[in-house]
Amino acid sequence: MNLILNSGRLAQGFLAAGLAAGIRRRGRRDLGLLYSKAPCAAAALFTSNKIQAAPLLVSRRHLRRGKVRAVIVNSGNANCMTGTPGIRAAQAMASAAAAALRLKPSQVLVASTGIIGRQLPVEEIVRAVPRLADALHERGLSDMAEAIRTTDTFNKTVSGIAKGAGMIAPQMRLATMLSFIVTDAAIASRVLKKALADAVAGSFNAITVDGCMSTNDMVVALANGQAGNRTITAGSRDHARFLKALRCVAAALARMIVKDAEGATKFITIDVKRAGSDAAAEAFAFGVANSTLFKCAMFGANPNWGRIAAALGAAGGRLDWQKVTIALNGAVVFSKGRPVASVRRGILKGRDVHVVIDLARGHGAKRVWTSDLSYGYVRINAEYN
Amino acid sequence: MNLILNSGRLAQGFLAAGLAAGIRRRGRRDLGLLYSKAPCAAAALFTSNKIQAAPLLVSRRHLRRGKVRAVIVNSGNANCMTGTPGIRAAQAMASAAAAALRLKPSQVLVASTGIIGRQLPVEEIVRAVPRLADALHERGLSDMAEAIRTTDTFNKTVSGIAKGAGMIAPQMRLATMLSFIVTDAAIASRVLKKALADAVAGSFNAITVDGCMSTNDMVVALANGQAGNRTITAGSRDHARFLKALRCVAAALARMIVKDAEGATKFITIDVKRAGSDAAAEAFAFGVANSTLFKCAMFGANPNWGRIAAALGAAGGRLDWQKVTIALNGAVVFSKGRPVASVRRGILKGRDVHVVIDLARGHGAKRVWTSDLSYGYVRINAEYN
Repeated sequence: MNLILNSGRLAQGFLAAGLAAGIRRRGRRDLGLLYSKAPCAAAALFTSNKIQAAPLLVSRRHLRRGKVRAVIVNSGNANCMTGTPGIRAAQAMASAAAAALRLKPSQVLVASTGIIGRQLPVEEIVRAVPRLADALHERGLSDMAEAIRTTDTFNKTVSGIAKGAGMIAPQMRLATMLSFIVTDAAIASRVLKKALADAVAGSFNAITVDGCMSTNDMVVALANGQAGNRTITAGSRDHARFLKALRCVAAALARMIVKDAEGATKFITIDVKRAGSDAAAEAFAFGVANSTLFKCAMFGANPNWGRIAAALGAAGGRLDWQKVTIALNGAVVFSKGRPVASVRRGILKGRDVHVVIDLARGHGAKRVWTSDLSYGYVRINAEYN
Repeated sequence: MNLILNSGRLAQGFLAAGLAAGIRRRGRRDLGLLYSKAPCAAAALFTSNKIQAAPLLVSRRHLRRGKVRAVIVNSGNANCMTGTPGIRAAQAMASAAAAALRLKPSQVLVASTGIIGRQLPVEEIVRAVPRLADALHERGLSDMAEAIRTTDTFNKTVSGIAKGAGMIAPQMRLATMLSFIVTDAAIASRVLKKALADAVAGSFNAITVDGCMSTNDMVVALANGQAGNRTITAGSRDHARFLKALRCVAAALARMIVKDAEGATKFITIDVKRAGSDAAAEAFAFGVANSTLFKCAMFGANPNWGRIAAALGAAGGRLDWQKVTIALNGAVVFSKGRPVASVRRGILKGRDVHVVIDLARGHGAKRVWTSDLSYGYVRINAEYN
């Protein structure tokens, strides 16, 4: 399987567009549209935050109704904690897109990212939709990717070619993570949903920037069957290949999110091995990945692995620290109950950091990707809005 | 009850000292000693981190043995993840103090704060102990307070006068939090322990700087009965007064820790009211207090209360966001399912921030104190060691 990064071409039968509707400051693209010429099998996963933004409530409802044909998405406003007016605004976005594309509103999904607690300037969005529909193009992906950027510094798109099925997954953020994965493969919604859940577990659910869960996270997979291949059924050889491709695309996108994390100067891979269980490994890995002390040390290229130890101990899982081995970029720093005397200071100088934690306890394992905590992160989030 | 801040006088029968033993860079005080002329009722609480530093293991053992007379404490090295040599080093510290003071080693508690994973320079400590014992003085508290500072910018001591019982609680840190509370009141160890647990719940366990749990936290209360008052028994009027005084001292010290948090520019009080239970209130309050997005917004004096909402939703507890009321420094920003249109930007300009979150659900409540996340925090923790 080949992955072509930042290819501008969408899978067969999909079109996209993005423009400036006036939600964000003048001239910034802030409204995107994704359209399929044929009805799609659709699967979506939403944030597990107890507070969910209005577009998520509307999209959930539309997903239950039937075959999806389009997704409309804006940046600059999360449309969250906005009450009944917010729900109406999200519905109006879907209706406007449906009218311009001659669809039913329930065939349109809605997503938003931006500040919480401000009413969406829905009139400006509705006014811009016909222009947006006119701009739909099979090479419109980068415009759409740009329209959903907030603090992102680059567009995130991946195209994967796997057995004739084009796959494209553009555009996501980190505080709010939005991902739209489209394929021209033929696959039933329920098979697609399982495949998506599987792929998300090892990708979007294996990354963390700051441990803060958004109210607007949404991953959508759309399959319109336009490649003309036979339908992918569960358990088939095609299914295995599709799963592999989907995992690959999702992981590539997830890693891009971490690479573009707010203010990030490091790309950190944390491998927890031989934990009591996979769940324990996950708790330990995220405990380290979300430790602000650890993240600041990484920013300083400081091999102060005591922050890793403290985070492991605070994660709550069973732990025999005398058996733990910790390695930084291949150099063992703690082993057999004792620190290794000399750790070369320059060991963390590069952009990539690999932390391996071997707990010598069982067969559980988890890999997590994260970023450091820098002055840039503080600046971006002190100033935001 | 009166609280006198930064009084230099210890409770009756207690002496203290601090000096530079050479653990930290030249000239910095790094070794402290606290001594009681009479055997003390002792109570202690330790970190719940699964990885516990060597001095905590030694102190736990000594606490079981009998009446404590002294505490020896160093900064510059946590003596954690240091294996058998670390345990021997902590024992050597207790033995050296015991020899100089003509006590049994089991009458001495040991505490450490500093970097994890380096062997303690125990010879230098043992060599300095006789000089340290000679320096013991009833006005030696500030020297001891200085000796256990790491990134602290000021000494933290409180003296409380309550019904003739002098109370002094000096010296704590934030990443590692050490607190020694001494009183000349007469009270049994088990009554003291319950009182300490009660006081800690609403003070040291109600603060957070960065959500990172230390391997070395330790709160010790010593009571030597030297005031000549009658013994405080559970349920008596004296007991109620003692509890009140202890709570007051512990809360004052805990607030000082937050005020001196690494890089802090804000002192933030978070009140969660009418939660389903006290435990739920605590989870919501700490969820907000530990949100890096919230903390960065506070640093920027940015009334972006969406970060509070997102943190509440991520905390896991049951929540009906339409009923939630959020107020910042007295100004309601979200109520009755809708944002309040205009929030004055300057509202967070001062050092003190008060966040009130009313969940309109039950009778649970929790108050938590925290700090913001600033460039200074990142700098200190990127460079540390």
